Amino acid sequence: MNFPDRLRVIQERKGSLLCLGLDVDRAKLPAPLRRSRTGVFDFISAVVDATYDLVCAYKPNLAFFEAMGSEGWDILRRTVCLIPQNIITIGDGKRGDIGNTGERYAAALFDDLRFDAVTVSPYMGRDSVEPFLTRPDKGVFLLALTSNKGSADFQRLRVAGRPLYERVVKTASSWSPGIGFVVGAIHPRELKQVRTLAPNAPLLIPGVGSQGGDLEASVLNGITKHRDLAVINASRSILYASSGRDFAKAARAEAQRLRDAMERVRAR
Amino acid sequence: MNFPDRLRVIQERKGSLLCLGLDVDRAKLPAPLRRSRTGVFDFISAVVDATYDLVCAYKPNLAFFEAMGSEGWDILRRTVCLIPQNIITIGDGKRGDIGNTGERYAAALFDDLRFDAVTVSPYMGRDSVEPFLTRPDKGVFLLALTSNKGSADFQRLRVAGRPLYERVVKTASSWSPGIGFVVGAIHPRELKQVRTLAPNAPLLIPGVGSQGGDLEASVLNGITKHRDLAVINASRSILYASSGRDFAKAARAEAQRLRDAMERVRAR
Repeated sequence: MNFPDRLRVIQERKGSLLCLGLDVDRAKLPAPLRRSRTGVFDFISAVVDATYDLVCAYKPNLAFFEAMGSEGWDILRRTVCLIPQNIITIGDGKRGDIGNTGERYAAALFDDLRFDAVTVSPYMGRDSVEPFLTRPDKGVFLLALTSNKGSADFQRLRVAGRPLYERVVKTASSWSPGIGFVVGAIHPRELKQVRTLAPNAPLLIPGVGSQGGDLEASVLNGITKHRDLAVINASRSILYASSGRDFAKAARAEAQRLRDAMERVRAR
Repeated sequence: MNFPDRLRVIQERKGSLLCLGLDVDRAKLPAPLRRSRTGVFDFISAVVDATYDLVCAYKPNLAFFEAMGSEGWDILRRTVCLIPQNIITIGDGKRGDIGNTGERYAAALFDDLRFDAVTVSPYMGRDSVEPFLTRPDKGVFLLALTSNKGSADFQRLRVAGRPLYERVVKTASSWSPGIGFVVGAIHPRELKQVRTLAPNAPLLIPGVGSQGGDLEASVLNGITKHRDLAVINASRSILYASSGRDFAKAARAEAQRLRDAMERVRAR
């Protein structure tokens, strides 16, 4: 089954557009786990156990694992393994390099780490993205308009009268019909425009939760006319909902709150 | 000592602008090493031993190590350790993410792996680059105009009458005077223009060797008026100069040929 179809089925059957971003920072773990050698993986395991029925996807943030060195890479691989198969795994690394190098990143992310999908940076153009597009069952979310302040520096520059990120969406959609895009939840109007330009593309929408993006608009403007393929991510607001022993329960409560709020909008 | 000054001293004392890119692919190793458990690291060790007096920098390509999983991360760390301290190490990963994530990448690359410099993608703007700019002794090479065909897709789009990569150079130079840029050797005219826009910036110039870039123009158009700060990279043409037992000797001969050719132009 190709990636968009699989994502659609999962979102429909689970009744969830929620993606939980795994930005796991040892310094933010509850004290007993912070001091434990296996604390990071134990934390991830507990959070996944507490939330797996509420999410359509998990999105490990590669930077947080790389900062732990080769141990982090092992934890990352084990993290992907423990996620149930009916949930999408998104390797958020924002890679992008020339062809022979891009093939290595694709091998690392799709074969070694076994992610279902990845985030990719568009700056180097078509041949830097293509190595990730060769497998219909795997997904690509190309950066379009990101959730940070710096998104204004280059992504919004005018190219022939329209912003650069729109050009990225239009051009990349012509490379592959199934390619997806990243649009931050803090840009609801622009999200609507991207959905118009790419009516059937998977959209990864980070920034609800700690970053303060607009949940209602993320759903309304992000979903397709079939009410799916918007993958709406929260990370820290769920992971660190409590810094006490009840962290997993608190993570579940916050995930449930976000999932339910999204479903209410989706059902309108 | 800040990064550009250190690079300048090394290039002057060693008489070399050559950077050797470590794109190490097990499948391309000489047969005995290919079959050995420690073959990748043994190959890198032998190549470094054979070339360290000829280069100003080594540039491990992170994708090739990541494709080997956590073992690759260990090999990468040991590779950085074995490079003599009077040679610059450039972690070529083209990272770039929102602030709190960028800090993790900076920690991974500068603290855990101990690189002297990194390559960074500009697409996400200032706050995605800043985590790499906080340490004056560390270098950043921001992607401007890359050596691949896809560089034409977005990097050359016109923004207010000038190509996007020029805007990247101008804008990022205003963030930090010491920031460097990546400009492919296959674009000699554009390299000259970038050198004009950023007269004192370190420039990383990949693509001489296998990719066929112009060595003479890379030196003439890449160096500052003090004849330095052009870091000219070749990878496969040196690493795989021979697939036999004489691979290290052949790598040295090709490195010497390129270094000497560059020095002849530099001395004009």
